[in-house]
Amino acid sequence: MMILDCFDQNKTWVLKKKMDFVVGIEFGFKEMPVGGAALDLMGVPLPEETLLAAKQSDAVLLGAIGGYKWDKNQKHFKPETGLLQLREGLKVFANLRPACVLPQLVDASTLKKEVAEGVDLMVVRELSGGIYFGKPRGFGTNENGDEIGFNTEVYATYEIDRIARVAFETARKRGRKLCSVDKANVLEASMLWRQRVMAISSEYPDIELSHMYVDNAAMQLVRNPKQFDTIITNNIFGDILSDEASMITGSIGMLPSASLGEAGPGLFEPIHGSAPDIAGQDKANPLATVLSAAMLLKYGLGEEKASQRIETAVLDTLNRGFRTGDIYSEGNKLVGCKDMGEEVLKSI
Amino acid sequence: MMILDCFDQNKTWVLKKKMDFVVGIEFGFKEMPVGGAALDLMGVPLPEETLLAAKQSDAVLLGAIGGYKWDKNQKHFKPETGLLQLREGLKVFANLRPACVLPQLVDASTLKKEVAEGVDLMVVRELSGGIYFGKPRGFGTNENGDEIGFNTEVYATYEIDRIARVAFETARKRGRKLCSVDKANVLEASMLWRQRVMAISSEYPDIELSHMYVDNAAMQLVRNPKQFDTIITNNIFGDILSDEASMITGSIGMLPSASLGEAGPGLFEPIHGSAPDIAGQDKANPLATVLSAAMLLKYGLGEEKASQRIETAVLDTLNRGFRTGDIYSEGNKLVGCKDMGEEVLKSI
Ligand SMILES: CC(C)[C@H](C(=O)O)[C@@H](O)C(=O)O
Ligand SMILES: CC(C)[C@H](C(=O)O)[C@@H](O)C(=O)O
Repeated sequence: MMILDCFDQNKTWVLKKKMDFVVGIEFGFKEMPVGGAALDLMGVPLPEETLLAAKQSDAVLLGAIGGYKWDKNQKHFKPETGLLQLREGLKVFANLRPACVLPQLVDASTLKKEVAEGVDLMVVRELSGGIYFGKPRGFGTNENGDEIGFNTEVYATYEIDRIARVAFETARKRGRKLCSVDKANVLEASMLWRQRVMAISSEYPDIELSHMYVDNAAMQLVRNPKQFDTIITNNIFGDILSDEASMITGSIGMLPSASLGEAGPGLFEPIHGSAPDIAGQDKANPLATVLSAAMLLKYGLGEEKASQRIETAVLDTLNRGFRTGDIYSEGNKLVGCKDMGEEVLKSI
Repeated sequence: MMILDCFDQNKTWVLKKKMDFVVGIEFGFKEMPVGGAALDLMGVPLPEETLLAAKQSDAVLLGAIGGYKWDKNQKHFKPETGLLQLREGLKVFANLRPACVLPQLVDASTLKKEVAEGVDLMVVRELSGGIYFGKPRGFGTNENGDEIGFNTEVYATYEIDRIARVAFETARKRGRKLCSVDKANVLEASMLWRQRVMAISSEYPDIELSHMYVDNAAMQLVRNPKQFDTIITNNIFGDILSDEASMITGSIGMLPSASLGEAGPGLFEPIHGSAPDIAGQDKANPLATVLSAAMLLKYGLGEEKASQRIETAVLDTLNRGFRTGDIYSEGNKLVGCKDMGEEVLKSI
């Protein structure tokens, strides 16, 4: 229940098994600031205390990050920088982003019904490397004295290998089809990416591997999203394609994500942003955060059953006709963020 | 007419005003190999003769590039490398990619009718900089001895300024709304991009400028493409978003593009690829190439009237019900590539 409150508040929720949570497991929660909230409170987007508490927890549930107020801040004082530092600090390199069209919500998609219905894909995005973190980066001048801004897209074999294994394992639990997205016709970083994904595929002979250029993937997601089962791609392409895929479902307010590392706590967050235009108006859809908590139970704590109970409760709430504004369609009951949360609780 | 033949053949068409072309202007054509055709004929993807002829021409019309046969080639022997070398050699830095939903073809879109109809946007993509050409690039080893692949995303102020001016001018001839797409919440190259686009906007007080992060733009194109008039973005984001936008129209086989430099000949090509799966089967839609010739007349040779005649002929052909397979819908006449070309000629 507390989880619902953290929605769009730029806060990190740190869970410990202590308190009696809705699903009958003992949890301990600790709420710590990150992003905008941390900037306001302590002047940095990721306070040391927050990172330490996160590292010592079993799993981290994150609200959304950012807002108009801090949009013009310098890089080191941007809310987004706090999120990137948290991902880096927790060494979470595998970002799982499901995009699923629920039968109840197929009308919410802007795609034609026959194109949208049945879409059920998972984007496995590399989260701790590539152009987001590559060095050198910064500002400078070129040989003509012109100012430049630059970043480095770089991948090492071990980074590709480990995310590839996560993706192949993920595909194995799903439809056993993995599509690797890159720009290997232009970029060296992508050529190495493709080479390594192909090399790792020999460990997974039961998984059907294909490759697609990123521009084509952006098209194919619109043309026929059902062709995809599991997608693996780098950090920046994953940022773009997972958002595109989530919008194809028409219900980005419904979509959770999990970020996992080799060991240590995972980071669980809704895919949507902080939606500053509707913040504080009790309008937001809390289900992405609720479903992120479900992912947390499953991937973070290994509590599959409890996870399923939450997912089932969400479906049940939808079946009972409750909708927030973003997924509303005629004939259903329009509710605000809090009431939607209450209804999910009733369903549990 | 000759233009239609070059479709999906990996060839460059070089035009000179010599021959009597359909629109009553004297043209001279010269056909030169590039990409796969050049690799087969001379072992390199852009022969010197081709680049020289292109440079000496008034405008260059390009077929599509690439095919299965050369997919596994090393970088210097990829068809795509020939295209990049041609863009570089001609110093074309501004790539104009319209995405328009024609009333006749609204059903071809996978988007719902009310979302697709009326879409009319233009992506202005920076074409000669960024991660496509940035140095350093290549392969190496990191401090742990691990193999790496790397590329540099870099923009200099003059590169941003000149593409920004093209975009503002383009917006001025359209709906006077320009949306600049970047990832300024993470990348330094994007921060400079945003800064310079804002600086140049002071020269265009009549144009409404907005900014959007690339992940959000990928979503918004699906959610509500009609919100966009003109989009300006960097090379790689432009590659992805313009393909996404073109697929939203449902008729990528219809979409032309123009690549322009400071001076010298422009390069005109369909947006679609070489579609190796249907090559040589007389199935492809020739209209993107025909409309690229129309853009060539308008932007390359300043022959607006002739350009309009071709565009009108294409619309007329569609109104008469002729459709290739990719845009076919019930009640229309299915034709192959050649017949479609003949019908356009009849309409002129
Ligand atoms: C807020 C931003 C830094 C972040 C990213 O680009 O990774 C967001 O877009 C996401 O996808 O989680
Ligand atoms: C073929 C490839 C190199 C090219 C690009 O990435 O620019 C193509 O995708 C395009 O958009 O024209």
